Amino acid sequence: MVGGGPGSWVGEPHRIAMRVDDRFELVAGCFSRDAAKSRELGERLRLDPDRVYDDWASMIAAESERADGVEAVSVVTLPDTHSAVASACLDAGLHVVCEKPLTTSLEDARRLERRARECGVVFAVTHNYSGYPMVRQAASLVREGALGEIRVVHVQHAQGFGARPAEREGDAHLAWQADPAVSTEASVLYDLGTHAHHLLRFVTGLEVAEVAAELETHVTGRPIFDDAHVLLRLSNGARGSLWASAVAAGEEHGLQIRAYGEHGSLVWRHEESHRLWFRPVDGPEQMFSPGRDGLSDSARAASRMGLGHAEGFHEAFANLYSEIADAIEGRGQDNRLFPTVHDGAAGVRFVEAAAASHSNGGAWTAVG
Amino acid sequence: MVGGGPGSWVGEPHRIAMRVDDRFELVAGCFSRDAAKSRELGERLRLDPDRVYDDWASMIAAESERADGVEAVSVVTLPDTHSAVASACLDAGLHVVCEKPLTTSLEDARRLERRARECGVVFAVTHNYSGYPMVRQAASLVREGALGEIRVVHVQHAQGFGARPAEREGDAHLAWQADPAVSTEASVLYDLGTHAHHLLRFVTGLEVAEVAAELETHVTGRPIFDDAHVLLRLSNGARGSLWASAVAAGEEHGLQIRAYGEHGSLVWRHEESHRLWFRPVDGPEQMFSPGRDGLSDSARAASRMGLGHAEGFHEAFANLYSEIADAIEGRGQDNRLFPTVHDGAAGVRFVEAAAASHSNGGAWTAVG
Amino acid sequence: MVGGGPGSWVGEPHRIAMRVDDRFELVAGCFSRDAAKSRELGERLRLDPDRVYDDWASMIAAESERADGVEAVSVVTLPDTHSAVASACLDAGLHVVCEKPLTTSLEDARRLERRARECGVVFAVTHNYSGYPMVRQAASLVREGALGEIRVVHVQHAQGFGARPAEREGDAHLAWQADPAVSTEASVLYDLGTHAHHLLRFVTGLEVAEVAAELETHVTGRPIFDDAHVLLRLSNGARGSLWASAVAAGEEHGLQIRAYGEHGSLVWRHEESHRLWFRPVDGPEQMFSPGRDGLSDSARAASRMGLGHAEGFHEAFANLYSEIADAIEGRGQDNRLFPTVHDGAAGVRFVEAAAASHSNGGAWTAVG
Amino acid sequence: MVGGGPGSWVGEPHRIAMRVDDRFELVAGCFSRDAAKSRELGERLRLDPDRVYDDWASMIAAESERADGVEAVSVVTLPDTHSAVASACLDAGLHVVCEKPLTTSLEDARRLERRARECGVVFAVTHNYSGYPMVRQAASLVREGALGEIRVVHVQHAQGFGARPAEREGDAHLAWQADPAVSTEASVLYDLGTHAHHLLRFVTGLEVAEVAAELETHVTGRPIFDDAHVLLRLSNGARGSLWASAVAAGEEHGLQIRAYGEHGSLVWRHEESHRLWFRPVDGPEQMFSPGRDGLSDSARAASRMGLGHAEGFHEAFANLYSEIADAIEGRGQDNRLFPTVHDGAAGVRFVEAAAASHSNGGAWTAVG
Repeated sequence: MVGGGPGSWVGEPHRIAMRVDDRFELVAGCFSRDAAKSRELGERLRLDPDRVYDDWASMIAAESERADGVEAVSVVTLPDTHSAVASACLDAGLHVVCEKPLTTSLEDARRLERRARECGVVFAVTHNYSGYPMVRQAASLVREGALGEIRVVHVQHAQGFGARPAEREGDAHLAWQADPAVSTEASVLYDLGTHAHHLLRFVTGLEVAEVAAELETHVTGRPIFDDAHVLLRLSNGARGSLWASAVAAGEEHGLQIRAYGEHGSLVWRHEESHRLWFRPVDGPEQMFSPGRDGLSDSARAASRMGLGHAEGFHEAFANLYSEIADAIEGRGQDNRLFPTVHDGAAGVRFVEAAAASHSNGGAWTAVG
Repeated sequence: MVGGGPGSWVGEPHRIAMRVDDRFELVAGCFSRDAAKSRELGERLRLDPDRVYDDWASMIAAESERADGVEAVSVVTLPDTHSAVASACLDAGLHVVCEKPLTTSLEDARRLERRARECGVVFAVTHNYSGYPMVRQAASLVREGALGEIRVVHVQHAQGFGARPAEREGDAHLAWQADPAVSTEASVLYDLGTHAHHLLRFVTGLEVAEVAAELETHVTGRPIFDDAHVLLRLSNGARGSLWASAVAAGEEHGLQIRAYGEHGSLVWRHEESHRLWFRPVDGPEQMFSPGRDGLSDSARAASRMGLGHAEGFHEAFANLYSEIADAIEGRGQDNRLFPTVHDGAAGVRFVEAAAASHSNGGAWTAVG
Repeated sequence: MVGGGPGSWVGEPHRIAMRVDDRFELVAGCFSRDAAKSRELGERLRLDPDRVYDDWASMIAAESERADGVEAVSVVTLPDTHSAVASACLDAGLHVVCEKPLTTSLEDARRLERRARECGVVFAVTHNYSGYPMVRQAASLVREGALGEIRVVHVQHAQGFGARPAEREGDAHLAWQADPAVSTEASVLYDLGTHAHHLLRFVTGLEVAEVAAELETHVTGRPIFDDAHVLLRLSNGARGSLWASAVAAGEEHGLQIRAYGEHGSLVWRHEESHRLWFRPVDGPEQMFSPGRDGLSDSARAASRMGLGHAEGFHEAFANLYSEIADAIEGRGQDNRLFPTVHDGAAGVRFVEAAAASHSNGGAWTAVG
Repeated sequence: MVGGGPGSWVGEPHRIAMRVDDRFELVAGCFSRDAAKSRELGERLRLDPDRVYDDWASMIAAESERADGVEAVSVVTLPDTHSAVASACLDAGLHVVCEKPLTTSLEDARRLERRARECGVVFAVTHNYSGYPMVRQAASLVREGALGEIRVVHVQHAQGFGARPAEREGDAHLAWQADPAVSTEASVLYDLGTHAHHLLRFVTGLEVAEVAAELETHVTGRPIFDDAHVLLRLSNGARGSLWASAVAAGEEHGLQIRAYGEHGSLVWRHEESHRLWFRPVDGPEQMFSPGRDGLSDSARAASRMGLGHAEGFHEAFANLYSEIADAIEGRGQDNRLFPTVHDGAAGVRFVEAAAASHSNGGAWTAVG
């Protein structure tokens, strides 16, 4: 693992997700740019001190030399270093599990896509919401034709963590998110928008073809956009919207999708992640949940327990890690639902098109 | 009453709303362009046959002559005749209760506003959702500052009645809604969008200043737009969106508002019209409902019964009629929450600006 | 109307319910034991002063003499006078719409049943919750066999109005409910329990055969029971419970039914009266609502408007009044779902059996 | 670990719960009475084959001899062997984590309580629902006096897994649950009722003092009771009910608590385990959720992630395992919320009293 040290929010869920199904063993890491902090966490995790590294380049070099070196690297650093770390892993022939956003520039995204293809390793990007059983059920319903042709899709990932200028009040997480050098001006789209974008693609199987965007900064003095409204034209002619916000005060997780087709619509909300609502035009509304009859194979496979035993964020995340393990072991070819470098790159293309639309007065802009 | 005859959907709720609080007595009508149908309904309603008229012009003329002539007229005809009937009522010095949309052209809307002002009569437009107790509570929360400055507002009125080309399958209601001569090309915005637009204004107290719109026809061959996505810039700098749709298959009523401010957000959905959720950033989510402690005076006044006795559409509608009765009697000056000709005209200006934006490639367009 | 004067809670909903469908005209009344109050309300209702009476016996006598005398009487007095007023109406050959509980003694209930049968008039008891479209859909699902044989039923009507000793703080409503001379010691079962009991019978079609009851007074010094827990053995061998409470602080209306059969279960709650949940063992949970496809005829007939337009308490109540009007006019024989004197009497038998069980240490007791 | 082999439902969640917070390492086991199955699982878990045992007595003996022997044993066998295995562990001075029910007889429960006290080891019983953050918030609200004196409590654990005679159709899980030799006649109370009973005690801090029970077998030919309705008298005079059922077709997990006090009530349902509703008599309903402001320390400590990231069954279970680890390490004395042998024994006493009440015609019976 690179990154994910003390103070990191995302390192711990990655580690828990690895452990849940016992498919990965964490044996080496460079958890922080501060070597002392990295060692502190290594010790807490009971790692061999020789395999806790002061910088990630050394780690990749040393582990590549070892007969028992790591097979895969989880990259959970800040967004601006994903590209460099992931590239080095690819050069060393290591499988990569990269946090989103894949990169913060189109050029980097394209290079990673190309290199990953050349190297033939597994390259996953943790748009982890695709690991939820009911998100998979949603995708299955669309594929089975339950909705018919899709006409309108609304997605959002809107949270309230940036409602106050907390980056100036010592909030370390917001500090780097509100730093354009780390997260770009379009931070809110890279941070949250790419999750909503992948959710749309995963569930509907459609691509975002064109965007018209309005970005805004609501908290005075913040050097990034903290709110983004994007109108969408999808690859099949459907219309829709994507809303990403850091100032949606009162929201909890604020991730949701609503898709409307000829024959009905579906709704999934992260706050009730174990529920999926399907609303046909010709009968009662239906609520799916793990363990009930009527689920697709992919939804059923994504749940460990039976009816009524909610699994949540960690388990959904673990589903990706388990599928990644299968992929590394060369199994499960027909069943790979985890997002890859190509999905990550699609997200970057979407954000850059939205930023360009906004700069151009909200004009409709093709996604590259 | 003009319009509202057999086959009309909206006539009956108007009549029930009048009766609920027993403030109006329906004594005359011209219910249909088909005189026989008009008389049939008049008989069913036990009206004096002399006061059931074959055309609305005769009705206004005759009633104006009678000592016991009507004081007010409910105009529930198709959209393209609202302007003419309402004008004639104003000329006769009669109070008007007009269905939405007020008119289908800016010019007519401006003329009605001017005439109503000159005549000094009561001119209400039945954006009836403002009659719900919890919508009033929402408006009160905003006015009290519970949300702080508002930053983002999303409204929608999205239904599925037009998911199929039912206008070609004998659906009379959809037939005139899909007829551009009656409802204009922007039909979905006039029919549904104006309700969402008034809800936004009523709850937040803000005006829509600029719009960027994408209109679409999803059902092949339909000569109107059946889906409209509009990005909003509000009068205080807030951002947001309005979605109006006739192809949102699976939705029930599909009217809702979500408003996000500095300190929290609120959510109201017509499907659970007796609930209002307030989500402060610094505590548990709160759910208001009629009869519970903690309601504003205006919310409390809008509910007839106590805790747990849901009142619905008719009672909310009746709230408007009762306030209109007060206004006609010259009472309740400080407490007039019912929408007027000016609110109706604001809706027309919004729709026309959105239609212009769409024609102009979605460019940001000021609301006239 | 007898009763329902100023200060009465139940008079106004009865009057609104009459007006909603315009099937009844209120032309005479004795609204209060205080003649001045009665006249005050008569005036407000614009009644002919000659037909506002000082006592109910005079009213029945005088109206019986008139050629245009009332056809039916709504009895909305306090529980202890229902029996006497209703008897007099029967003697005069008038149809009766009686508030619950029908009576507060077994003997009175039996006499009314017998007299009503002899007189051949319509005798309705306003267990008004059976007028909700989704309660009727619930009953239809059971009749269609969707649940299979029913095994367990839980009903409750639990409210919080008596959580404090408000009867000693000027609450007039609670004053008579907490007065054993008016409402009996088993007040909470007569007031609330009979509604839950009728809901169970209406939905499941089963009778309560035996009860084991635990009654309790939670507010010190209150001379009635304010909380009742009753275990049930139903006529088909099913088991269940009924909870009636006036001290369920925080509840809104607190009326609900859950019925479990071989193939699934259903849930209806008054707080979301426009929803019905059906949970089959072999598929997703289903939510029915007015206007959606898949409803029974009786459910469809109980709703005036389409999808998404919530109707509530008054409209459900109006459904009963409209059916009563049909019955008085001799129509709708096959379609009479309103509760009658026999349903009212069944409620009295249930309460008396529960009270007897409690007095006997909670022993299982047959319902008479 | 003893038990939890292939086919066991409960072994895997125990193992995941151990791993989530990385506080336990599973190093030895006797997973099945079938030695081959035990070894198969040991191999899959990558255990040292020398530490996978053919019978539990050998395991306890051998591990006690090893310098690196196990410190604690998870007992996840069938109910009838909990007592023997746990006793042997105590004799060997090992800490015990025992599945519920603790035992299936009063005598065994008493002996285990006594032995555990003498041995001074940690003895946890996995009534795991007490590990949910919102269950802890519920307990905190009661302790803080938010409800005032509690008057009524309803708990249930009702599921539908036994709606059909699946034990005769090859359902191995139901086979032993429906076998009176393994699970006693009161199986449904031991299996499900004890969870509801502990939930009541954990949240309210009250004990069940007296019970009146009605047990029933709904599936013909089943030699155990599959449905139990129990009226409760609590230690402070409150009243209530407990419903445990295996025939509640359509329920998901069916575990819930509703507690009503002088000032309001709270509701927690396992299906929405990340929510807690508090309904004060004097204001809007409040919904608590992990990560929101306003939580107690114990609730906050029970959640790993922030707002909107649902944690579920495994994480709640892991909370217990982590606290057990603290206890084994002698830390966290002030903060031990996990259920112990005494809580397990309280459950046994409750079930035995309910069974006695039923045998005695439902008479009120003191809990031993």
